Amino acid sequence: MNAAEADGALGAAAAALLGDRRLIIATNRGPVTFASAADGSLRPRRGSGGLVTALSQVGRHVPVTWVAAAMSEGDRRAAADPKLLRLAAGGDDAIRLRFASVERPVYDAAYNVIANRLLWFLQHQMWNLPERPIIDAATMRAWQRGYLALNEAFASAVLAQSRGDRRPRIMLHDYHLYTAAERIRRARPQAIISHFTHIPWPPSSIWQNIAPAIRVGIATGLLANDVVGFQTERYSHNFLRMVESFVPDAKVDYAERTVRRRRRTTHVRHYPISIDIETTRRIAGSRPARRRADQLLAATGERVIVRVDRLEPSKNIVRGFLAYEALLQRHSRLRGRITFLAFLVPSRTGLREYSDYGRSVQNAVDRINARFGHGGWRPVQLFYENDYAQALAGLSIADAVLVNPLIDGMNLVAKEAVVVSDRDAVLILSETAGAFDQMSDGALAVAPADVVGTADALATALAMPVEERRRRLARLRRGVEREDISWWLRIQLEDLAELTG
Amino acid sequence: MNAAEADGALGAAAAALLGDRRLIIATNRGPVTFASAADGSLRPRRGSGGLVTALSQVGRHVPVTWVAAAMSEGDRRAAADPKLLRLAAGGDDAIRLRFASVERPVYDAAYNVIANRLLWFLQHQMWNLPERPIIDAATMRAWQRGYLALNEAFASAVLAQSRGDRRPRIMLHDYHLYTAAERIRRARPQAIISHFTHIPWPPSSIWQNIAPAIRVGIATGLLANDVVGFQTERYSHNFLRMVESFVPDAKVDYAERTVRRRRRTTHVRHYPISIDIETTRRIAGSRPARRRADQLLAATGERVIVRVDRLEPSKNIVRGFLAYEALLQRHSRLRGRITFLAFLVPSRTGLREYSDYGRSVQNAVDRINARFGHGGWRPVQLFYENDYAQALAGLSIADAVLVNPLIDGMNLVAKEAVVVSDRDAVLILSETAGAFDQMSDGALAVAPADVVGTADALATALAMPVEERRRRLARLRRGVEREDISWWLRIQLEDLAELTG
Repeated sequence: MNAAEADGALGAAAAALLGDRRLIIATNRGPVTFASAADGSLRPRRGSGGLVTALSQVGRHVPVTWVAAAMSEGDRRAAADPKLLRLAAGGDDAIRLRFASVERPVYDAAYNVIANRLLWFLQHQMWNLPERPIIDAATMRAWQRGYLALNEAFASAVLAQSRGDRRPRIMLHDYHLYTAAERIRRARPQAIISHFTHIPWPPSSIWQNIAPAIRVGIATGLLANDVVGFQTERYSHNFLRMVESFVPDAKVDYAERTVRRRRRTTHVRHYPISIDIETTRRIAGSRPARRRADQLLAATGERVIVRVDRLEPSKNIVRGFLAYEALLQRHSRLRGRITFLAFLVPSRTGLREYSDYGRSVQNAVDRINARFGHGGWRPVQLFYENDYAQALAGLSIADAVLVNPLIDGMNLVAKEAVVVSDRDAVLILSETAGAFDQMSDGALAVAPADVVGTADALATALAMPVEERRRRLARLRRGVEREDISWWLRIQLEDLAELTG
Repeated sequence: MNAAEADGALGAAAAALLGDRRLIIATNRGPVTFASAADGSLRPRRGSGGLVTALSQVGRHVPVTWVAAAMSEGDRRAAADPKLLRLAAGGDDAIRLRFASVERPVYDAAYNVIANRLLWFLQHQMWNLPERPIIDAATMRAWQRGYLALNEAFASAVLAQSRGDRRPRIMLHDYHLYTAAERIRRARPQAIISHFTHIPWPPSSIWQNIAPAIRVGIATGLLANDVVGFQTERYSHNFLRMVESFVPDAKVDYAERTVRRRRRTTHVRHYPISIDIETTRRIAGSRPARRRADQLLAATGERVIVRVDRLEPSKNIVRGFLAYEALLQRHSRLRGRITFLAFLVPSRTGLREYSDYGRSVQNAVDRINARFGHGGWRPVQLFYENDYAQALAGLSIADAVLVNPLIDGMNLVAKEAVVVSDRDAVLILSETAGAFDQMSDGALAVAPADVVGTADALATALAMPVEERRRRLARLRRGVEREDISWWLRIQLEDLAELTG
């Protein structure tokens, strides 16, 4: 399928599902957020982030009503002002923006206490379990009066946008919105609702640590959807096992991947998310990106290892540097001839775990540069900023791209890397990244805690004959081109139409 | 089945499996260890620990050859001295002791680096994954030259004890001996070999973090056994999933619970370990224990909560105290009238994680005693020593016994508690303890990180009418009496005879 055909197929799938309806999408972070200017007026600012970019695609094909959380005071003010909301969409009605608005303390409890601390850490298996989490009275309040309240607000906003429609089509997204479907379902029993979890779904033994009210609330909340989607087969299996363990009146069918409960069927599927290839290529091929690529190349050794990540403990950045250190130690001929470019984007800098981790990363870089650097040669160059074009420029000149997360819902860097590579980059990929399921036949696999194995993989990548590099890269590129973001959307829309038909 | 009948059934099962053979048992820690006295002579010292106590039972019924690791210099000297080994067995030939002996650095690498650090922490999900483990060159050396070498030494010692026997009967135990069966199998293809893992078996996503050579070595090592046993159904399921994920030429049958590989079949079973009820009752009923129980009762409030644990991060002791603190805060009428007796046994005090955790425990106790204590009342009394009779005395006087581990292969305290209770104790038990599978219908369930839920369970236990307490305790006691240590041994011997027959 070429790009035009894929576009057509996506449009057809959307039309089949929606008829003359708008598709209702709900996500925590919306495509636009409002900041108050000095004069008190509100200024819209386009959001970034993979999810927003991905879902904005749908608007090219079908009219979308997008319900997002009012995250700022500006959003809360804009929520009450239809004119502003229209303006934010650029005057065009393709994407209609609405806010689910709750008081700031309610939002903070939902977002900071439950979603970004408890659930993010739990689902990425980042808790040091003997110490954390501690489900205390404050956590339970944040769950009841924060998380559940925010989900109620989302449900209300969604219902307000589907007035008069017995079967609205609704796509809910990610770990902020696990319980919204239940309330929507009560009000519109015939609604067609899906939920997609973008982050990992851990085994039951992880969920088992937390309060039953929370884990059962999440499981039954999701079962109010018609389709529950995950990034990989393993995550959807883990979800089915969790339901079987914790929801006594649910009947799980592993072969059919369904859950039957209270005379309703929920289908559990996996849809590996991907990138918008055209956009990625456009930015990577832009004049500023090309210039930046040339500058980077001029400042590096002959061989270049690249990583691009949010600075986040689950990305396993420190062990990546330990592997590089072991590589330099064992292969002295590489010294002076190789550069590790690390493009790290600041993330959640207010959380202690993240700032501590940032220091560990910096310490590792300083140690390696002090230990091996000499003359004009710096073994590691660290870029700590949010510059997407520069990161793509870096990926384009890599000989090896290191993507070694501890765990990762998908990891789009792996997919960007194979699309923008100009130097037949070898992809080194954690088995624990969601992307591994699609990319295992072209990438070099590593286990995230295995520093020795990661050093070996780097050595193998750098020593690989160019024909094999090309062959692997071509295979990976074909895979990403075939299963891109438009494919990801289309198969969901098709499933939703078929499974609820 | 009464005790005499159970004894007879165990003897019959042993005879059916063994004929006139000796049963060969291999464990890291043996029933006796040797210390050098001041005059250079070697003195045998009886080992303690649940595993040793449990397996010593077998010797009552069949002749056993017990191969243990030479853990001390004394053991290494004794290994070469048959006279000493005979002496150690008390002159009696029922249990014949042999040592698997390796050089001290080899043993240290196997025991301290791989078994007690890497595997124990990994299988109890105690690693803070963004930081640890780090599989570096030293780890891989410890695996290859330590762990694998120790397992080779065990295999050699076992083979030396089964000379001339084409089908020796061999039971290997626990996380120190995952790879011994492979070498035994090569030398005696017809041998009947089982392995039992006493600690938890985590999901594949945990194993996935470490080097493929280690996790695949463990999986294929275990597949050289005829029967691979675990404490619970969940652990055996996790093992099957692990084999399916990481051993490409293995065929897993979930319904039959078998793995087929290289023309051999391995049966995967679960056998929940238990206690020797007679011994437990005898010690709890001894004069010193009764006296200690009276002393404890005299020094406590009207209501008594008890916990007994090694001081170990996976036991979740701190959150237990946080729950007690929340209980005292919410139920002011309990203040001055209740005592929490914590019997904590020193464990692995040389490891930083353990000593840090010990400090957290002490801090929690000090805070609660300072916050609520007044007059003569101390809300928590902490006993930090290894005094088994005292611990049983404590359990016997409990109104509520708190067993809230983060994760635990089985947890025998839960079983001891229901056997020795004199005051209709209510058992509060983590869902994540192996014992939960057998005890869920009598215990109050808690999720280990759920401090609010644990405080609720304590309140429920203390408010429970005596009839319900009795009913629950009687049910639990019947269960433990039915499925005691002799039952645990018998069903394994029976399976081994039947599945290899």
